[in-house]
Amino acid sequence: MKGLGTSVGIGIGKVLIYKEPEIKISKNSISDSEQEIERLNQSIHKAIMEIDNIYNITLEKVGQPEAEIFAAHKMILEDPEYISAIKEKILTGNVNSEWAVREITNSYISLFQEMEDEYLRARAVDIKDVSDRVLKILLNIETKDLSLINRETIIVARDLTPSDTAQINKDMVVGIVTEIGGRTSHTSIMARTMNIPAICGVKDITDIVKEDDLMIINGSTGDIIVNPTVNEVISYRKEKEDLDKLRKELEKLKGQESISKDGYKVELAGNIGTLQDIDKVIENDGEGVGLYRTEFLYMYNDKLPTEEEQFEAYKIVAERLKGKPLVIRTLDVGGDKDIPYLNIPKEMNPFLGYRAIRFCLDNKEIFITQVRAILRASTYGNVKIMFPMISNIEELRESKLIVEGVKEELRKENIEFNENIEIGIMVEIPAVAIHSRQFAKEVDFFSIGTNDLIQYTLAVDRGNQKISNLYNQFHPAILSLIKMTIDNGHKEGIWVGMCGEVAGDEKLIPILLAMGLDEFSMSASSILKARHLIRNTSKKEIEEKLDYILDLSTADEVEKYIDENIISNDLDI
Amino acid sequence: MKGLGTSVGIGIGKVLIYKEPEIKISKNSISDSEQEIERLNQSIHKAIMEIDNIYNITLEKVGQPEAEIFAAHKMILEDPEYISAIKEKILTGNVNSEWAVREITNSYISLFQEMEDEYLRARAVDIKDVSDRVLKILLNIETKDLSLINRETIIVARDLTPSDTAQINKDMVVGIVTEIGGRTSHTSIMARTMNIPAICGVKDITDIVKEDDLMIINGSTGDIIVNPTVNEVISYRKEKEDLDKLRKELEKLKGQESISKDGYKVELAGNIGTLQDIDKVIENDGEGVGLYRTEFLYMYNDKLPTEEEQFEAYKIVAERLKGKPLVIRTLDVGGDKDIPYLNIPKEMNPFLGYRAIRFCLDNKEIFITQVRAILRASTYGNVKIMFPMISNIEELRESKLIVEGVKEELRKENIEFNENIEIGIMVEIPAVAIHSRQFAKEVDFFSIGTNDLIQYTLAVDRGNQKISNLYNQFHPAILSLIKMTIDNGHKEGIWVGMCGEVAGDEKLIPILLAMGLDEFSMSASSILKARHLIRNTSKKEIEEKLDYILDLSTADEVEKYIDENIISNDLDI
Repeated sequence: MKGLGTSVGIGIGKVLIYKEPEIKISKNSISDSEQEIERLNQSIHKAIMEIDNIYNITLEKVGQPEAEIFAAHKMILEDPEYISAIKEKILTGNVNSEWAVREITNSYISLFQEMEDEYLRARAVDIKDVSDRVLKILLNIETKDLSLINRETIIVARDLTPSDTAQINKDMVVGIVTEIGGRTSHTSIMARTMNIPAICGVKDITDIVKEDDLMIINGSTGDIIVNPTVNEVISYRKEKEDLDKLRKELEKLKGQESISKDGYKVELAGNIGTLQDIDKVIENDGEGVGLYRTEFLYMYNDKLPTEEEQFEAYKIVAERLKGKPLVIRTLDVGGDKDIPYLNIPKEMNPFLGYRAIRFCLDNKEIFITQVRAILRASTYGNVKIMFPMISNIEELRESKLIVEGVKEELRKENIEFNENIEIGIMVEIPAVAIHSRQFAKEVDFFSIGTNDLIQYTLAVDRGNQKISNLYNQFHPAILSLIKMTIDNGHKEGIWVGMCGEVAGDEKLIPILLAMGLDEFSMSASSILKARHLIRNTSKKEIEEKLDYILDLSTADEVEKYIDENIISNDLDI
Repeated sequence: MKGLGTSVGIGIGKVLIYKEPEIKISKNSISDSEQEIERLNQSIHKAIMEIDNIYNITLEKVGQPEAEIFAAHKMILEDPEYISAIKEKILTGNVNSEWAVREITNSYISLFQEMEDEYLRARAVDIKDVSDRVLKILLNIETKDLSLINRETIIVARDLTPSDTAQINKDMVVGIVTEIGGRTSHTSIMARTMNIPAICGVKDITDIVKEDDLMIINGSTGDIIVNPTVNEVISYRKEKEDLDKLRKELEKLKGQESISKDGYKVELAGNIGTLQDIDKVIENDGEGVGLYRTEFLYMYNDKLPTEEEQFEAYKIVAERLKGKPLVIRTLDVGGDKDIPYLNIPKEMNPFLGYRAIRFCLDNKEIFITQVRAILRASTYGNVKIMFPMISNIEELRESKLIVEGVKEELRKENIEFNENIEIGIMVEIPAVAIHSRQFAKEVDFFSIGTNDLIQYTLAVDRGNQKISNLYNQFHPAILSLIKMTIDNGHKEGIWVGMCGEVAGDEKLIPILLAMGLDEFSMSASSILKARHLIRNTSKKEIEEKLDYILDLSTADEVEKYIDENIISNDLDI
């Protein structure tokens, strides 16, 4: 059996089939509606206590943004309109609480499901999750308590709700397999956050396997083995041990330099979004932050974050990095990142649309507020500022003028900032890579954003399943653009980094090293492995092969050549 | 006053305000419903005769695709379900025909307006147009007959329906100004087809100007002058005369070579979609067809065109060209071109999606049918085959294999075709331009598709109004990609053409000539002007300036340099 691996690692454990208990509700006539409402009040009260508990556990074990879901759940149960509608139903219809909750909830859900706004539509799921909790309390339905799992277990479910995953004991749950979902489903995101191997999209798995079956899953390949042979268990256990061993080996690289065999030093940095991510970067000995995605500050909010809120956030990260570089990217909204309260109109091709710097230059107050916050934070660490989605030099000049204007303002107000703050741009639009020689004359650094660069250069929406086979980081044209950007940056004396997924791609790291990339910024969990690779690679040796590689015809040829000629055995980890 | 110029040229004439007469309908009770139905029948009959007449006029004066609208109108009035619903309404409600038509039509319109499919939604407009015609007959409402205009007139209207534009006498109507619509609105398309200057999107113009006002419009700039001064009339008349003179000058270039001052010869070809377009190419002395957009065969149809239908279409074009080159592009569906019966699912970013060769390689029967038709037509002229939206060499190889397979089939069936048919690709995805050296080794020619190439290279949806200022053909990166493609093509000994709008851009034609572009394919009406430009340009002189131009920072600098240093006075036409 096979599914879509969405969180890497090997899990070996006993199956626990987690099915949501069926909630059956009949309509009963009640005689004492006051008493019935009291019963409802108690259930809601109990549900809120449960939610508070889950909120605290999640906040402690996972993080603030994940916990926010439960703050929202609580708000639903405290919404006077929703609750009084249920009570009114009980009073006027003389019906039982369960019936009233179900009726009112269903009308709310269909209301939300019909909404144009995708964000609001998704709220229907939360209302369902919350009302099910109340109904289970009313009906005395016990659910399996996932926090009580006390042996190595693989959870098999149709899907897990936020309430479910919050209870998971990550020391005992060694894998998750679900019938629905993809890389970005709630379950997958949580599994990656908790380092639990996970596989999604395995049709009918809850019917196919039995409770207590022994199961092996490989979160990299998506492979699932039910009731494996002894040999299979041995072989996977060996692989798991190797992975664990490697993890320990990598631990030893903490505090070591990121330097190639022939003495070429690079910077290995982490990408961060929320404040929690910075802990992971430090834990994995990242040498800085190459990309701080500030849009999370805007997304986990129902209004624009104030200058003060932003300043605080940037300052905390800058301080925690203790002088290591911190590249703050200005707001990258639009494309696939919707921030509902900004009311950006729907577009035919959002990836080719009104986003990032295009939005900011058109909404200068929002942009200026952010630039002020970044500049104010710049005295608390080694802060740099970076503009996303620049496509021509006019946009860059206009953005720099705005920074100059804010500097002037701050000087007048006697507010301190770093006068020499470095200003850079994302190189993620093909035109900028092609014309990078000229752009390099007007910035302090480049950071190549491969995710967008690949999708524009190959004209492939990376989220479109029907053509995902065409999205390929080994396409020789992509490598040519990267080399062109690095070369042109160096000709003008600036440093060149990369913050797309390619920066952490094990097969491409040696190539990027040979091209002279100065900074690699990736997800924190890849940093030590990248250091291992770099320390075992000779830059010069690969440099000699670059021309040959760039002249190959196809992505497959490039990948094959790398497999056979670049990734030597001692690198194959 | 200013609007959006959507059809070039200068118009000077008296204003005719064309307002749709208001159709007021009251509900009357009728006594003899049989007689009322007879009245309805007669009106429908008269409407059908009117439509037949308009169909014939349009077919003769404009062309088949434009006439098809009226075939569709007729079908609505012959739809038994629609008509019997109206009659039933009359019978059961004892109401007058007008009321019944309006009631039934409104319910049909709202039905269509709610449809998911954009194409079907747009049909609501046709139903309205047709039912208004019937109502006007029932109510004896006379409309201004646009075909009777007998002095130089500028029509000012909220918008024009297909029925309106079909009546226009293009010798007397010297301009059209409308309140709504854009470049792709029906009115604009028809104005361009009929060579009538037009301006759209001029708010409240029907209230601002008065009947018989003198008006000047400039369809290039969108400028509108009402009741101009004598000097203004003189100056615009002069400009119009110059334009007319130029048109006559250009006439003289028919039969001349497309050769630069210093003896470098190029091919000036036309882009065609429908069969009618080929007449215009021949009329303007085009030296071939650089792009035959075959998707029109699929779009003006409610099912897939058969091999035979396609063969006939390709054969006619090939024969009419009498041995001049004909580049047939295989189906480019998807993106902004929807073919409803293919049921391609809606995508988040259709321009970066499942389209053109991506669709064809996934729907091989459709592709093979087209390739068979093209190969069969190849013995009737100088036919070449071209694949759109190639992004990697694997797609190219697979497409070529399919052509080989079809050739083998035809050989077995003893069907003649050109064994040496040239195979080329559109260069419209940045990766292909960048990696063009390798692609050039596997094709017979390139044709640079600048419309898509610009939108991917700059990450700008060219249809998105909010960011249209970022779409710029003078961006130095675009010019670099074009040069790279031409150079690499020539290194491998193949010819390089261009079929995007840049090929007809007066400011860029000298640059493209200097870069060594072999073939320029454009809308037929631009061919003679391009020839004039080329005959007055010295390739070598501009060649020396290319490096300097490509090294400029911004699109504005490039355009300014061209204005000041390339377009000499004798070229400024």
